[in-house]
Amino acid sequence: MKLFNKILIANRGEIALRIIRTCKELGIKTVAVYSVADKESLHVRFADEAVCIGAAQGKDSYLKIPHIIAAAEITNADAIHPGYGFLSENAEFSAICAEHDIKFIGASAEMINKMGDKATAKATVKSAGVPTVPGSEGLLESVEQGIKEAKEVGYPVIIKATAGGGGKGMRIINEEADFQKAWDSATQEAIASFGNGAMYLEKFVVEPKHVEIQIFGDGKGDACHLSERDCSIQRRHQKLVEETPSPIMTQELRDEMGDAAVAIAKAINYEGAGTVEFLVDKYKKFYFMEMNTRIQVEHPITEEVTSFDLVKEQIKLAAGMPLSGRNYYPKAFSIECRINAEDPTKNFRPSPGKITHLHIPGGHGIRVDSHVYAGYIIPPYYDSMIAKLISVGQTREEAIVRMKRALEEFVIEGIKTTIPFHLKLMDDPKFLEGDFTTKFLETFDFDSIEG
Amino acid sequence: MKLFNKILIANRGEIALRIIRTCKELGIKTVAVYSVADKESLHVRFADEAVCIGAAQGKDSYLKIPHIIAAAEITNADAIHPGYGFLSENAEFSAICAEHDIKFIGASAEMINKMGDKATAKATVKSAGVPTVPGSEGLLESVEQGIKEAKEVGYPVIIKATAGGGGKGMRIINEEADFQKAWDSATQEAIASFGNGAMYLEKFVVEPKHVEIQIFGDGKGDACHLSERDCSIQRRHQKLVEETPSPIMTQELRDEMGDAAVAIAKAINYEGAGTVEFLVDKYKKFYFMEMNTRIQVEHPITEEVTSFDLVKEQIKLAAGMPLSGRNYYPKAFSIECRINAEDPTKNFRPSPGKITHLHIPGGHGIRVDSHVYAGYIIPPYYDSMIAKLISVGQTREEAIVRMKRALEEFVIEGIKTTIPFHLKLMDDPKFLEGDFTTKFLETFDFDSIEG
Repeated sequence: MKLFNKILIANRGEIALRIIRTCKELGIKTVAVYSVADKESLHVRFADEAVCIGAAQGKDSYLKIPHIIAAAEITNADAIHPGYGFLSENAEFSAICAEHDIKFIGASAEMINKMGDKATAKATVKSAGVPTVPGSEGLLESVEQGIKEAKEVGYPVIIKATAGGGGKGMRIINEEADFQKAWDSATQEAIASFGNGAMYLEKFVVEPKHVEIQIFGDGKGDACHLSERDCSIQRRHQKLVEETPSPIMTQELRDEMGDAAVAIAKAINYEGAGTVEFLVDKYKKFYFMEMNTRIQVEHPITEEVTSFDLVKEQIKLAAGMPLSGRNYYPKAFSIECRINAEDPTKNFRPSPGKITHLHIPGGHGIRVDSHVYAGYIIPPYYDSMIAKLISVGQTREEAIVRMKRALEEFVIEGIKTTIPFHLKLMDDPKFLEGDFTTKFLETFDFDSIEG
Repeated sequence: MKLFNKILIANRGEIALRIIRTCKELGIKTVAVYSVADKESLHVRFADEAVCIGAAQGKDSYLKIPHIIAAAEITNADAIHPGYGFLSENAEFSAICAEHDIKFIGASAEMINKMGDKATAKATVKSAGVPTVPGSEGLLESVEQGIKEAKEVGYPVIIKATAGGGGKGMRIINEEADFQKAWDSATQEAIASFGNGAMYLEKFVVEPKHVEIQIFGDGKGDACHLSERDCSIQRRHQKLVEETPSPIMTQELRDEMGDAAVAIAKAINYEGAGTVEFLVDKYKKFYFMEMNTRIQVEHPITEEVTSFDLVKEQIKLAAGMPLSGRNYYPKAFSIECRINAEDPTKNFRPSPGKITHLHIPGGHGIRVDSHVYAGYIIPPYYDSMIAKLISVGQTREEAIVRMKRALEEFVIEGIKTTIPFHLKLMDDPKFLEGDFTTKFLETFDFDSIEG
């Protein structure tokens, strides 16, 4: 079956490069788009064609829908892969692609609206029989309604911007006295970040693990899952380390959560790659959190343990090819550390600038997805992730010791990175035991990191 | 069980780094040794300790047994890993290590003598019931004896230096008239390279494939194999590309060749990692060529398809741990391209010098074992391999397209490399079909490589 002739990648950094890699392996031509700040980027160098789409700021380039559509039309691209972030979950963009007869390699506008709006998603999921965290049935109309519903589900509660993500526009509230202040700051933040201050409320699950299921759907009602990723190691709702299998997973729980995720995908005739995020409490009860209708940053760990190329599968499904018809289970253990240009000893303050010296680790069981090179200047305009360091081993212990030696080998000079944090984490007794929740980093001793 | 406290790595380049990696993963301290030409090398940077052992030339440093033993004694190393090349198959070195109560992570002097001397090896193997290529029963005592035996087995024949390797000290002879000249040049070369001009003779197998079996023995009579590697892509007996499984392999042939290799290992109570090299003719009959009593350059492809760390296994066996007790079969397809600092458009002329710009490929299914970095100066004194690029895929085709995209991504500026050759090979119809013998590169169109 025919795939695509030419795919435009509406993104930058490592994910742009990662998508180009799979396109090359499939014999599909690629078009890179780039801002003026990114003209020396590798995704520009390695694509078959490259089009400058605007000024440095994301809103002037990678978020500029007319420029990207124009780039696709000029270059005759027949599909657009949006990566993650930027326009990857933008329903308008998906719809405009469809109007221009350009295949959007992601969810349809309808699907994005259904799942991208978290309150609507929750209602959809509930009707598929999947448990959700108790909370408001849809958006809160006022702070007063919020206070009333909080009383009903019981404190602590969490309020979340429906358009939110990445930890922005959400607040945990421990008692009624704090409600008004939290509401005000969360809605202001949400308006500033997403242009939408609408909020919903949930009971705050204590001692939660963040465990997500990777799914694929064929858009015709069939779906499968590729098991879980444990993303509990988060700082202010930003994932820093992910692993699969989850240390708490049993085959029984995996089957239950996998079935739930697949039920959601089937219920909405989902097409392409998606991730169903769950909270799992200490009793191993799981609750739907949200569904991401795109490829995730942390998808490589699933690739490493299932031998599956997730971007290849996205492209094949977008071209109308069938699902392989079964679920996939981990055959190994994989961990990803996000290497960010941030100073972990200074509250993860961004550290853009020039990489003066670089040595990327390699060898058995080590994969690196990165767009940087010696001499590369990290621009200050985008997210600060500069590399994903992925290890794979036959046991969790092997994946950890391999990660540790790769972190020790990783040389990035000229800027600060999160490597010292990851090195400390790989020695942490609780982490080594697999005993951690999403609260783990709240009590982590960042001050003793050797920067 | 206790492994070692500290291992000295008596080597340089990528293999020194590769051994350090596994030691780190096992929690074993490492000592690097280095020549004055290698003081900026990564193996020096990444080892726990480093000792300078002499001048640039290998004979003054990496081949200087007293300096290496002194380095081990000064640093209290309890084991030495010799890597490949240099002293890895030097019986004297193995014996001296044993005398100093330092574990040599390789074969005993007795084993090296038995297998390192090719004529003796052939006799040993024959008595284990494994087929060998017809030829002289041991060393040739004179050119006259050579001419006589060549007449008996029939031309073409090949003469080989018993101490030889890497294509040195061997000549193919097509008719009696060429014998004397070939004999003279081969023996001179062997004396210059190995200090030993002793030769033996074999019938030259027409249309041969080079297929080798990786084995492990526990030194107590037990052994297992890890399937084959096809190393037929050779230029002047120098391997350039290896893959596993071999395109010609059937499970029946693998079992037969595996059993033969294991029979040899068992017959000599072999300890550690070894490789039994066979020629396989067009009728899939196989003949023992030689046994290498060390880790091979191309071992990573076996690691990629069996999920086994071969250096870890070497260390565990050297420490007296038992074999796992079964054979290992490929679960995927893997290819290795040797990236050499050589100009493939100029007869593979070495191209030492400074790497001015470097981008190492990454992503799913790509492994790189390399000791170079941007700014690294490749010294002219040692072999010219600067990286091993390894791909793995679920099919041979996937491993090839992945290799191709990784080769395209590999940026090494300032020197010439074999990358353009590999790129051309990955497009060659015969290679793509898996239809090649050790003669393949003799008719390869090197002139049309775009350098």
